[in-house]
Amino acid sequence: MDYIISERVKTLKPSAIREIFKYAADPTVVSLSAGNPAPEAFPVKEIAEISNKLLTEDPIAALQYSVTEGYAPLRKAVAERMKKKYHVGTEDDDLIITSGAQQVMDLITKSTVNEGDTVICEAPSFIGSLNSFRSYNARLCGVPLESDGMNLEALENALRNEKNVRFMYIITNFQNPSGVTTSLEKRKKIYELAKKYSVMIIEDDPYGELRISGENVPPIKSFDTDGLVCYAGSFSKVLSPGMRLGYVIAPKPIVQKMVVCKQGEDVHTNVWAQMVAHRFMTEYDFEAHLENLRSIYRKKVNFCLELLDKYLVPNKITYQPIEGGLFIWCKLPQGVDMNDFCKQAVLRKVCVVPGNAFLTNEAEQCSSFRINFSTPTDEQLEKGIKILGELAKEIL
Amino acid sequence: MDYIISERVKTLKPSAIREIFKYAADPTVVSLSAGNPAPEAFPVKEIAEISNKLLTEDPIAALQYSVTEGYAPLRKAVAERMKKKYHVGTEDDDLIITSGAQQVMDLITKSTVNEGDTVICEAPSFIGSLNSFRSYNARLCGVPLESDGMNLEALENALRNEKNVRFMYIITNFQNPSGVTTSLEKRKKIYELAKKYSVMIIEDDPYGELRISGENVPPIKSFDTDGLVCYAGSFSKVLSPGMRLGYVIAPKPIVQKMVVCKQGEDVHTNVWAQMVAHRFMTEYDFEAHLENLRSIYRKKVNFCLELLDKYLVPNKITYQPIEGGLFIWCKLPQGVDMNDFCKQAVLRKVCVVPGNAFLTNEAEQCSSFRINFSTPTDEQLEKGIKILGELAKEIL
Repeated sequence: MDYIISERVKTLKPSAIREIFKYAADPTVVSLSAGNPAPEAFPVKEIAEISNKLLTEDPIAALQYSVTEGYAPLRKAVAERMKKKYHVGTEDDDLIITSGAQQVMDLITKSTVNEGDTVICEAPSFIGSLNSFRSYNARLCGVPLESDGMNLEALENALRNEKNVRFMYIITNFQNPSGVTTSLEKRKKIYELAKKYSVMIIEDDPYGELRISGENVPPIKSFDTDGLVCYAGSFSKVLSPGMRLGYVIAPKPIVQKMVVCKQGEDVHTNVWAQMVAHRFMTEYDFEAHLENLRSIYRKKVNFCLELLDKYLVPNKITYQPIEGGLFIWCKLPQGVDMNDFCKQAVLRKVCVVPGNAFLTNEAEQCSSFRINFSTPTDEQLEKGIKILGELAKEIL
Repeated sequence: MDYIISERVKTLKPSAIREIFKYAADPTVVSLSAGNPAPEAFPVKEIAEISNKLLTEDPIAALQYSVTEGYAPLRKAVAERMKKKYHVGTEDDDLIITSGAQQVMDLITKSTVNEGDTVICEAPSFIGSLNSFRSYNARLCGVPLESDGMNLEALENALRNEKNVRFMYIITNFQNPSGVTTSLEKRKKIYELAKKYSVMIIEDDPYGELRISGENVPPIKSFDTDGLVCYAGSFSKVLSPGMRLGYVIAPKPIVQKMVVCKQGEDVHTNVWAQMVAHRFMTEYDFEAHLENLRSIYRKKVNFCLELLDKYLVPNKITYQPIEGGLFIWCKLPQGVDMNDFCKQAVLRKVCVVPGNAFLTNEAEQCSSFRINFSTPTDEQLEKGIKILGELAKEIL
């Protein structure tokens, strides 16, 4: 049988990261390539306690079919918190629960992007989202990322010249993979450009709660008086990624279409997990838990930066400073073959993610790679970065 | 802001059933419109036991990111059982876990159907799947369903005359909404037609384990020596729908593309739920549990059929006999306005699903409606069907 594959996914490849993730399952390999939250950041005891109680008190609700929009008390709790804490969400917005924030990208693209339409992304950007856009045959247009957000001139050029631009995709805090946080000034200017060109913004914010230094920067969605911004949030980094819980706060006409699409995709998100998240948010001290996460990651980041300063910087590898998130973007000197460097690292049993995986055009030149410090233990981190340093010393 | 909605979903409406489901949340309404498994069919005690153990023994695996294909031990357990018990799955097939069987429909359509391509469906068929196909701008072609499966002449006509037919969608056992089981003879002929016209079959089998009388009919997939059939299974009716667990057994080239699409949709399915399902299948007596389900549903069906014979049949409403599943397809006499009948029923606080919701063209004439007997209590069932009978007596 000659299988016919649709045009939209014919050239779509598995995410390099998900593939590396499998390779990194080899226990002798030090994986700096994942994006997994630190195991010690999971509130295991609380989750077990809640789940046990739930399956005693209200098992049928947790196990039966539910509504596509999500478990109403969880929707309410998240909406109230986001409104109160970040001024996110207006009367013209609605909030639904999704199967991870990844599904937000899928549903918005499905709802608003025709095949061949354009999506503007930061370059580099999160490959999972890029692949989601690609899977609907969107044309990706990458705008170079600077240390405080997208280059605005390049952005306006893209908005002016690209055809049928449907939205700009921005990870505002501790961007994956670059670690960059878009400054308040740029957030405001990007919003003005969105308004000027009538183009929506998807603000993806999975890492916002993981700030370990500096001041919170208001989300673009917090000054969205024109209904231009779809804000995507996630429980993956603050509760558990295995539970697959995300949400979107967006203008009602968009959310309505997303709900119809979600019905056809997975009917609704695992409701047991939704009820656990709701009880964790409302019956426990959620803010104290987040504070605890930040102190776990603060230690991890500082330890990692020390290692980078000790092993990589003296060997000509630089990195982008960060104030939170899970990733550090390391840069090789000009002229060095980055892909070859990453391959050599794998041969020495250290996995990092080659930077071009995050570009809208993977064939483009890129001299950076991404490392993650949240998943490995301190010992693994030191071992891995030391090996990278030795490799750099030899070949750079 | 004028929101732009993509062509593919512009005319897509929420599923009538999901909408009625919300309405039916009114506790004074007797809902015969859902498709929920009977609450007493959930192995609550066992699920709680497994989950507690799991969160004690292996919490990080249950809460951390996992692989897109699904939890390997669960994939293995399902594949082995389906092979051994139903001869489903060959060396050229692969099995992945999905977020409910609904996601199978989405992922196959996304992977194989270009906009404007044709999907052949039974008429009537499950609206959730139809909407999934519609959401990729597939052209739906309905083939009339007879009491033993599709009309083969109409099917071959469609295969001969429709352009770019990508697959036929068939719910082989106790079809939703009609209750029809496709006979072995027709299964074989449908397979031969698929081969003759090089068109894939999606065999959707969420209810197969809920047979309460008669003999099991081999799945089409069990005689698929040519790699033509994608078989979709579900845990929703045998474990819990709220956990959102399904699977697909299909030729490797198709599964590979589905995996890439799933990465972009939800990364992977809730792994906690997958681990619970695995332990339930392997550490408990799964077959005895299924036998228990069948005895629960046998009682429900028989009770429901008695009520139909008592209240509806004498008032000119007939029904399609069933040997399992969750639904009964009732038929009004020719010339009666079925939609008006359903509206009148709602005014008397009984919800059923108007049959045209299940047609590829909802505007088509339809004189049937669907009732569900698994969700309501015996008292609700009797009350609801009695009211339908009184209504029929008055207006037919």
